[in-house]
Amino acid sequence: MENKYLKRINKPSDLKLLSVNQLYELCGEIREKLIQTVSENGGHLSPNLGAVELTVALERSFCGKYDDIVWDVGHQCYTHKLLTGRQDVFDTIRKEGGISGFPKREESKYDAFNVGHSSTSVSAAYGIARAKELENKRGFTVAVIGDGALTGGLAFEGLNNAGRSKKNIIVVLNDNEMSISKNVGGIAKYLTNLRINTGYLRLKRYTEKVLIRIPVVGKPIRQALLKSKSRVREKLYKNTIFDDLGFIYYGPVDGHNIQKMLNAFKAAKRVDEPVLVHVRTTKGKGYTPAENDPGSFHGISKFDVDTGEPLSASKGYSAVFGEYMCGLAKSDNRICAITAAMTSGTGLKEFSQLYKNRFFDVGIAEEHAVTFAAGLASKGILPVFSVYSTFLQRSYDQILHDAAAQNLHIILAIDRAGIVGEDGETHQGVFDTAFLNSIPNVTVFAPSCFEELRLYLHKAVYDTHNVACVRYPRGCEGYLPKDYSPCDDDYVVYGSGENVIITYGRLFSNACKALEKLVLDGKSVTIIKLNKIKPINKEAVKLCLKYDKLFFYEEGVMCGGVGERMFLELNTLGFKGDFYLKAIKDEFVKHASVEKTLQNLGLDSESMYNDIIKYGV
Amino acid sequence: MENKYLKRINKPSDLKLLSVNQLYELCGEIREKLIQTVSENGGHLSPNLGAVELTVALERSFCGKYDDIVWDVGHQCYTHKLLTGRQDVFDTIRKEGGISGFPKREESKYDAFNVGHSSTSVSAAYGIARAKELENKRGFTVAVIGDGALTGGLAFEGLNNAGRSKKNIIVVLNDNEMSISKNVGGIAKYLTNLRINTGYLRLKRYTEKVLIRIPVVGKPIRQALLKSKSRVREKLYKNTIFDDLGFIYYGPVDGHNIQKMLNAFKAAKRVDEPVLVHVRTTKGKGYTPAENDPGSFHGISKFDVDTGEPLSASKGYSAVFGEYMCGLAKSDNRICAITAAMTSGTGLKEFSQLYKNRFFDVGIAEEHAVTFAAGLASKGILPVFSVYSTFLQRSYDQILHDAAAQNLHIILAIDRAGIVGEDGETHQGVFDTAFLNSIPNVTVFAPSCFEELRLYLHKAVYDTHNVACVRYPRGCEGYLPKDYSPCDDDYVVYGSGENVIITYGRLFSNACKALEKLVLDGKSVTIIKLNKIKPINKEAVKLCLKYDKLFFYEEGVMCGGVGERMFLELNTLGFKGDFYLKAIKDEFVKHASVEKTLQNLGLDSESMYNDIIKYGV
Repeated sequence: MENKYLKRINKPSDLKLLSVNQLYELCGEIREKLIQTVSENGGHLSPNLGAVELTVALERSFCGKYDDIVWDVGHQCYTHKLLTGRQDVFDTIRKEGGISGFPKREESKYDAFNVGHSSTSVSAAYGIARAKELENKRGFTVAVIGDGALTGGLAFEGLNNAGRSKKNIIVVLNDNEMSISKNVGGIAKYLTNLRINTGYLRLKRYTEKVLIRIPVVGKPIRQALLKSKSRVREKLYKNTIFDDLGFIYYGPVDGHNIQKMLNAFKAAKRVDEPVLVHVRTTKGKGYTPAENDPGSFHGISKFDVDTGEPLSASKGYSAVFGEYMCGLAKSDNRICAITAAMTSGTGLKEFSQLYKNRFFDVGIAEEHAVTFAAGLASKGILPVFSVYSTFLQRSYDQILHDAAAQNLHIILAIDRAGIVGEDGETHQGVFDTAFLNSIPNVTVFAPSCFEELRLYLHKAVYDTHNVACVRYPRGCEGYLPKDYSPCDDDYVVYGSGENVIITYGRLFSNACKALEKLVLDGKSVTIIKLNKIKPINKEAVKLCLKYDKLFFYEEGVMCGGVGERMFLELNTLGFKGDFYLKAIKDEFVKHASVEKTLQNLGLDSESMYNDIIKYGV
Repeated sequence: MENKYLKRINKPSDLKLLSVNQLYELCGEIREKLIQTVSENGGHLSPNLGAVELTVALERSFCGKYDDIVWDVGHQCYTHKLLTGRQDVFDTIRKEGGISGFPKREESKYDAFNVGHSSTSVSAAYGIARAKELENKRGFTVAVIGDGALTGGLAFEGLNNAGRSKKNIIVVLNDNEMSISKNVGGIAKYLTNLRINTGYLRLKRYTEKVLIRIPVVGKPIRQALLKSKSRVREKLYKNTIFDDLGFIYYGPVDGHNIQKMLNAFKAAKRVDEPVLVHVRTTKGKGYTPAENDPGSFHGISKFDVDTGEPLSASKGYSAVFGEYMCGLAKSDNRICAITAAMTSGTGLKEFSQLYKNRFFDVGIAEEHAVTFAAGLASKGILPVFSVYSTFLQRSYDQILHDAAAQNLHIILAIDRAGIVGEDGETHQGVFDTAFLNSIPNVTVFAPSCFEELRLYLHKAVYDTHNVACVRYPRGCEGYLPKDYSPCDDDYVVYGSGENVIITYGRLFSNACKALEKLVLDGKSVTIIKLNKIKPINKEAVKLCLKYDKLFFYEEGVMCGGVGERMFLELNTLGFKGDFYLKAIKDEFVKHASVEKTLQNLGLDSESMYNDIIKYGV
């Protein structure tokens, strides 16, 4: 299809130059661009395809100088980027030096608030709205939130605060009947009921609000309405949960019908109160493979446009985790699995089918997941919460206060630990080592291959008695020397020599490659691989005392990380040798491929080699 | 009043031996005991006085072997402790070695789940209920949650998950129309509407559920009811927000009427679905000073029973903070203050009255508080979120993902930082240094006296451009030498000599006292006081290189703390001297007075003195 309309849109206000029919054609062009680009760069597809018309209608309705649109999660912002001056660089999305796959204030003045995690939009938008009011600035503030994100507690906190404010803030509920997996919980069921009322716009309070604004006749009509309002009549206008929280509810509106959405947003702008516009969309809309299986096309790697098949499909850590969990569950009926709306992503699909009553998808509710797990554990169940490292940040207090402080045995399977690559700074799994370090009664294991993942999961479940964590990276197994045999000891010594590399997890592969190259250069290297990174085994620390040159490599933040901790423990035992620590400095790590990012951070085998050539013996 | 009934109650089932009238007399005895004990030990008074009848009714209704009662927050558990075998030790409450002021599994089998922070009960209770089901154990599971705690997102996540479960779990909403301060938000307003329907029990679905269980006649009656149910009739039974989430709503019930509560709980036990019983109570009930000012009697120090006046009333850091904030707000209308239901506790009462439109009490919603602040900051407002260190744990991801990752300038005023004393392990403010350390774009200041609190608040607001934190302890100013002058430099050198004490915040007082004693013994001491603890000023690190004996004292966790960080920075600059670090080891710190706790941890002046005598020069 020729790019006829898209090239004419350089900023949102350009949308006003197109008729509604032309806007539909524009949507077609956008869809084509999305499918093409994501098939080449990887990224989020289904959420973007579902939100094309919604975004066009939003940007056309809210394009004033002072208007702000806050996208929840942000993985649906691709159309927004195309409409706000980033068409020329769109093919760089998620690539190093290119534009981000998420909204970024530093990228465009149209990106109101940075995001990557779920459920933040209402709170942020409410802050923006109040700020504008305090500064006497005009302009609408819109939060666009999915029904999945609505299961997160933060979204509720935001609605609870914004709803009582009597200030204009517009929440657009992008309801596609799922979050990333099928949406769950009482609120999801509730939305199902609301959706049944198709075409029935809930106008009770809205009518009054708008009527009063119509010159001359508005007021009298409203008065008449008010007088006629009996208690029964009032009851018949069933309040929604959003009305209960202080919002004027308006919907449901067909999220692929541009004209209806334009009307709805126009109405929402007229009301001087918090409004919630309920929009129904279809995730993956317009691309059959994605419509049929929106979960698999939620966030994906490169794929073939014609078939929808991924271009690479090697087995990853998540799949190994899922398989092993099924085995554990088969032999022990105390085993439960918990996910926060990431059944597929964390490899739990089979488990969810085989062990329905021991599988809990809690929605995007990482806090609840941990506290719920603690409840289960208090009665002798063995709950395994599988979660991406970056999202576990949400549960810091629950791990500390609900599980660790009463020393309950929950298991945290921390997926996507370390650098995640193209999703960039909001998704890097580089903080868990540090924040878990700070919590007592926590044990953390860091396998370096699939077999070790199995071994440490077993150890976490059966031989650990506090908060037991196993952290493993995104993607596939890395290089392992042929003579290396996985085991479940707290630490492993590989090779022998005066230069000591200490590391853990995925970086062991790089260390082994560096060792091989160094040996060829006549250098001798000992690798001490920590399998248990919290607490660090004392014998591993003692072992290091024999050496003068220690090189510690860590795929995590330096401040509060394992290297820093190790060095202090070495000091306690009297170490006075040289300790070189390479970890992630005190800054956020931008998007680029995993391999390239590790290079940039000096955590690749080449950098290790160079360090030892330069500073080693 | 003679202790006539209380002494007969050693376990909940003993309550069955008393008539309802006798239960009221028991409640009188309990109230007397509560007032007497809290006046001597300090503690939580208003929440406990409000929940006496509720607790008695609950323990009488749920005293089976497999029943579990999960208390939200836990500060209302005193009556529960008195009824579950802890009368003899009740006067040790909150004292070192005595019983805790919060539920503790290690203390009694009747304490189902440890707690101290808000909004965890539904998630934990749901976990307990599902565990019992998986293990085929009988027994009811009850979560007792206040209306304030309901403003926390975790509570919503718990309700959303438990509500859809079709499993029996009983949530008792202890509604006293306030959390700690007056309750806020849409949900609070909503509860107000519910409360208006006094005495009107909402029986719609409940009736059907119970009817069906009545032998012989039940089913036919239900059939008749179902048939007669027209759409209008259905609508007239207005659903509550709790119905919407999957609960059967039952209430409101007078929470000081034991018989009515017994009936309500009996009914709730009969339903095989999630039930929410809405109970109305009066905070501070039965003690006039507390009823009149429940906020001040929420958590208090020792006081005079007759007058209600506190026995000591020195000015604390919170008051200084509040005063200074009023000054800032007066001269700069971009200044806003945010609190999470802690207006009085954080010293913001005056601010809230003087600057209504710039004051935001967000409810017990620390996550929202930070994201909302980030929204405000994105538009140039200067938001100061004042929060206890322990509760800021809730906001880890919001600080990281919503504020720091986009380098927004929000200000965190971290009250109760360090040891808090009698509230014990759930409330110690000893983790913030470590978890903030792990986050890029964060600056942390640690004043040691009131004047420095003012100086660093000013610096945080005006001379810092990322997430700017000022952390200060609970209570009053400590000892300061006469020749010490507060300043706003990143670090301060006090004294001079070969033994170097490095410390920050409150411990500076102890270091000065140690120095004075050491000087008398002919030892020489330099104190390097870090005022900015993240990032550590490089000059301060360089300065240390001149010395061989460094003694670092830290009122925070060692793992990931400032001392550990400092040592690594010293290493980077080539330090090879001796570094002694005393901080909080990798364990939770139990309740005792602040002074005694610091002694136990070796952070008092005497310990510092001894360390230097032993290891110094």
